[in-house]
Amino acid sequence: MEDDNGGVGHGDVVDVYPLNRYYFGSKEAISKKDDDDLVDRIHRLKANYEVNGMRVCVEGVLLVELLGRPHVLLLQVKNSFFRLPGGRLRPGESVVEGLKRKLSNKLSPIESTTSDNWQVGECIGMWWKSSFDTLPYPYLPRNGCRPKECIKLFLVRLPISRKFFVPKHMKLLAVPLFQIHDNCQTYGPVISGIPQMISKFSLNIIQG
Amino acid sequence: MEDDNGGVGHGDVVDVYPLNRYYFGSKEAISKKDDDDLVDRIHRLKANYEVNGMRVCVEGVLLVELLGRPHVLLLQVKNSFFRLPGGRLRPGESVVEGLKRKLSNKLSPIESTTSDNWQVGECIGMWWKSSFDTLPYPYLPRNGCRPKECIKLFLVRLPISRKFFVPKHMKLLAVPLFQIHDNCQTYGPVISGIPQMISKFSLNIIQG
Repeated sequence: MEDDNGGVGHGDVVDVYPLNRYYFGSKEAISKKDDDDLVDRIHRLKANYEVNGMRVCVEGVLLVELLGRPHVLLLQVKNSFFRLPGGRLRPGESVVEGLKRKLSNKLSPIESTTSDNWQVGECIGMWWKSSFDTLPYPYLPRNGCRPKECIKLFLVRLPISRKFFVPKHMKLLAVPLFQIHDNCQTYGPVISGIPQMISKFSLNIIQG
Repeated sequence: MEDDNGGVGHGDVVDVYPLNRYYFGSKEAISKKDDDDLVDRIHRLKANYEVNGMRVCVEGVLLVELLGRPHVLLLQVKNSFFRLPGGRLRPGESVVEGLKRKLSNKLSPIESTTSDNWQVGECIGMWWKSSFDTLPYPYLPRNGCRPKECIKLFLVRLPISRKFFVPKHMKLLAVPLFQIHDNCQTYGPVISGIPQMISKFSLNIIQG
């Protein structure tokens, strides 16, 4: 991709619209998986791995403007940990279809049946877990060690306006890039690495 | 860009060849700028900013295989700090031409006159400095604050074999991704963020 500087593929522009252009409502919680304790969760992950092989998760990075600065939309589960909207692919499901389904599941009105109104853009990063209970890393584990999980992040371009409906046991928060940058302790390694992963884009911040 | 999963632009494959396919020699040092003390350096940066505006630097990320793992080629200056091969663009120079010139300057034989044998690929990140003596961040400083420097990183695809010639006051080191990941203290914020910035690529590790 050439730009006017003769460069290749840098300076891809992403429009970032004001938070106040969006409406936020709530809906009934759908899944209870977040209630698993750690032992149950690892048991479930192991059983799934035996059947389906490596778990593939897809997550979306959605940007909004607040106070002139770019913010990422994060889900906070039960006033505790933060996560990106997304989740596990079904066996055979494509990453784009899976992410659209998960985004609708987490962020669309409950009666919504179409999941094709999400603009899923570039893959911005892949993170790997070498075992069921370790943190993910932004590179494959050593040769011979079969990864147990791959998390793929995608930039999702938001329209100038839309309505979000969030399950009741979650909150949707807009968190500024400067707050998540290098803040692994609060947001975990994947979310705290978002500023690096999207730094190749030129953000066109449209103020509210 | 569609892949066989129906995805967009993820899974771009980068071949990574063994370190032992490359030859490393040395050449005379060219520039003495690395001898600047901090006061001289800031004075020089301010003077350049008055004349040319924001400083734009381009840097190349070059990957090699060692012990089955991906390594980044880093220059170490005077047994002290680490830097990526690259440097400041001349006024009006394109990022690709500038990076090729800088790569030849740092890594090609001294008699080399062509700088077109470097495969400069995607921009993988942009880092910004809001003043002359601060660390760079992977996002623009707040609105109204004019950035003083922009550092653009590019993935450079190496051929299966080549010769490198490094200026005498520098060493060229292959450092594994797992060592630079999150190691800002040793490598600075830009280099320690490389694993995140290249995590969207599938590295095809060719063992030596």
